[in-house]
Amino acid sequence: MTSTWLPAGTVAADSPFGIHNLPYGVFTTTEDPSPRIGVAVGNAVLDAGAVAQATGSDHAALLSAATLNPLMAAGRPVWTTVRAEITAWLTDPGYRHDVLPNLTPLQDARLHLPFEVADYVDFYASEDHATNLGRIFRPDSEPLTPNWKHLPIGYHGRSGTVVVSGTDVVRPSGQRKAPADAAPTFGPSQRLDIEAEVGFVVGTPSKLGEPVALADFRTHVFGVCLVNDWSARDIQAWEYVPLGPFLGKSFATSVSPWIVPLDALEHAWTAPPARDVPLLPYLDDTAAAPAGLDLDMAVALNGHEVSRPPFKGMYWTAAQQLAHMTVNGAALRTGDLYASGTVSGPDRDRRGAFIEITWNGQDPLKLPDGTTRGFLEDGDEVVITATAPGPDGTRVGFGAVTGRIRPAVG
Amino acid sequence: MTSTWLPAGTVAADSPFGIHNLPYGVFTTTEDPSPRIGVAVGNAVLDAGAVAQATGSDHAALLSAATLNPLMAAGRPVWTTVRAEITAWLTDPGYRHDVLPNLTPLQDARLHLPFEVADYVDFYASEDHATNLGRIFRPDSEPLTPNWKHLPIGYHGRSGTVVVSGTDVVRPSGQRKAPADAAPTFGPSQRLDIEAEVGFVVGTPSKLGEPVALADFRTHVFGVCLVNDWSARDIQAWEYVPLGPFLGKSFATSVSPWIVPLDALEHAWTAPPARDVPLLPYLDDTAAAPAGLDLDMAVALNGHEVSRPPFKGMYWTAAQQLAHMTVNGAALRTGDLYASGTVSGPDRDRRGAFIEITWNGQDPLKLPDGTTRGFLEDGDEVVITATAPGPDGTRVGFGAVTGRIRPAVG
Repeated sequence: MTSTWLPAGTVAADSPFGIHNLPYGVFTTTEDPSPRIGVAVGNAVLDAGAVAQATGSDHAALLSAATLNPLMAAGRPVWTTVRAEITAWLTDPGYRHDVLPNLTPLQDARLHLPFEVADYVDFYASEDHATNLGRIFRPDSEPLTPNWKHLPIGYHGRSGTVVVSGTDVVRPSGQRKAPADAAPTFGPSQRLDIEAEVGFVVGTPSKLGEPVALADFRTHVFGVCLVNDWSARDIQAWEYVPLGPFLGKSFATSVSPWIVPLDALEHAWTAPPARDVPLLPYLDDTAAAPAGLDLDMAVALNGHEVSRPPFKGMYWTAAQQLAHMTVNGAALRTGDLYASGTVSGPDRDRRGAFIEITWNGQDPLKLPDGTTRGFLEDGDEVVITATAPGPDGTRVGFGAVTGRIRPAVG
Repeated sequence: MTSTWLPAGTVAADSPFGIHNLPYGVFTTTEDPSPRIGVAVGNAVLDAGAVAQATGSDHAALLSAATLNPLMAAGRPVWTTVRAEITAWLTDPGYRHDVLPNLTPLQDARLHLPFEVADYVDFYASEDHATNLGRIFRPDSEPLTPNWKHLPIGYHGRSGTVVVSGTDVVRPSGQRKAPADAAPTFGPSQRLDIEAEVGFVVGTPSKLGEPVALADFRTHVFGVCLVNDWSARDIQAWEYVPLGPFLGKSFATSVSPWIVPLDALEHAWTAPPARDVPLLPYLDDTAAAPAGLDLDMAVALNGHEVSRPPFKGMYWTAAQQLAHMTVNGAALRTGDLYASGTVSGPDRDRRGAFIEITWNGQDPLKLPDGTTRGFLEDGDEVVITATAPGPDGTRVGFGAVTGRIRPAVG
């Protein structure tokens, strides 16, 4: 196993940011407020651009950008080379004098949205989640729509309101109408919820009119992050027929600040669940390498863990979602973000949204402080974390996506 | 009426690009392939940046950009000043020597996507269109969903596949399933359609968490263009429940190359239709100035006019759409584009989509060449144009959004 020369205490043996992870982010410090690319390693952030300049790296320009977009646009061969280079800096003591001045304690780094989001697409790939939502939103119909097992259902969200972890979320106001009401009313959402998801970040673009095959997933996808797709269930329920979610989602979508490279997830691939219906060729992955990801996720409310959603149970994989999203010829751009959809398992303590955990508020969750929750209250803080298997029993960490609810305005 | 000193023949009395219009675009020429801001005037394009530099304008930097985004971001007071300045160049003969070298015949200009699209939202604001689509897609239900008259229904589309007029559209492939089929099949769309729409381009951004009031429409919206929201009806019908249109729309959305400033539309404002239900305060425009727009649109297929959609009949105005889109606190960015939804009137020759004109292909359209159309065939060219009332009986032209269908790939 590769080991680092970094000073003892920098990278603990069980660190989620071990030497095999090396996720990318963008950070500033009080001393230097210019945004720059950082790589998390143990309890520190490496200023990747500064080290690249100090070592005369060919990739100094890419790593000295203010966002990850130029690096993401450079394509997989460059991603592989840059990752090998950063690994060398941290494992070859000859780089000590270049690296040591460019480490910042993680706690001193302010983390920013690491890339400029192009288009944002949200999928709906957990069978348990889709079944639960179908039962709650459409109690008189089959919970899964007839298309659900034939294609990964998705829709476009608002890329301009994707925010980095730690950004407060203002409770949205909007129209909502209970079935018994004669007309809609306006006011702050009373059913503010989360959706614990996993996000995939596109690096290499594609051409308009040219679908991306299942096998080309690794060519285009740069890395993985966590997503909290905040949802106002009362606004959503009233607005979403027939054209889908809009204001119930568009007020904020939070992403974790660290983008875990696909190369850090080599030990996390796992077989997706068996599919119940034959898939059309462009989605058929039965002969492909396992394309599910074995991520253990956790959702905490005000410091109390409320759920551990199992990502490996997702019916549709990220490769299938990418193939589907482009099969009509839609082009990919650097910075496209697509999210898995809420990650839910079959049991209550494995669900990734409060609407499922509390069954639309009917079965509130009891918190250790004696309070209960159907949905989120002002001041509540949600933290979603995840890890994946790494080499030799280590875990690859995704960090956290956090957000606190602020009261509605006006 | 203001008149121009431009040489006789440059601006005909009935030109859609008269001196009161002055729409903005981005153009190149064979001699100078660098994209730059142009203003259409008669049968010429004015190189706005070059004249601004020649005259020492304070806005030379904004007008010398490669896209309209910097000018759009500068805000309404700057838009007003810049428009007055350009008007002065074209009406005060003292500017003759600055202007004349910087005019290009319109036919020699290659027109580009004039702004970088941030988020793209598509609305659904024609009661006739929504009723027709409801009857076709959901024959067993009420055609208008219960929310339709309470809020302007909309959804996010794919901003990365917004293309400029003149870009060929490759017929998309995808899944489609007729009700009688046991399973979906895959192949080129057999029901490729248009949607004739009007687009609104956001200049001034807004802050996350702060709704934009009805009255602030003019503060934020820079101008207006034409939109063809290409739609694959077979793909759309199979995929869109429950989360809305996705691949049936995301392969291409064409926009006209000229952005008509709001200031050019002073004579086009008109009262929207009477509303059937009381509106919540954030949408209630009964006490506001008329916020409908009296645009006459025309749709031509292979040179033959097939429809004249009446924009003034739209149930929801652009100001209401903007207020709704932000009422949950969603932020606006410079470059946000939102489209009206298909513009359809009550009669067959006033409908803005073939699915309505031919009633889902059941009543094909006869063309002068003896052929018929249910939906679009490969090689078909669609041209959507529009004009609005200008001062003294003139018309303000929007130019055209055109597109030709290329065969499916693969």
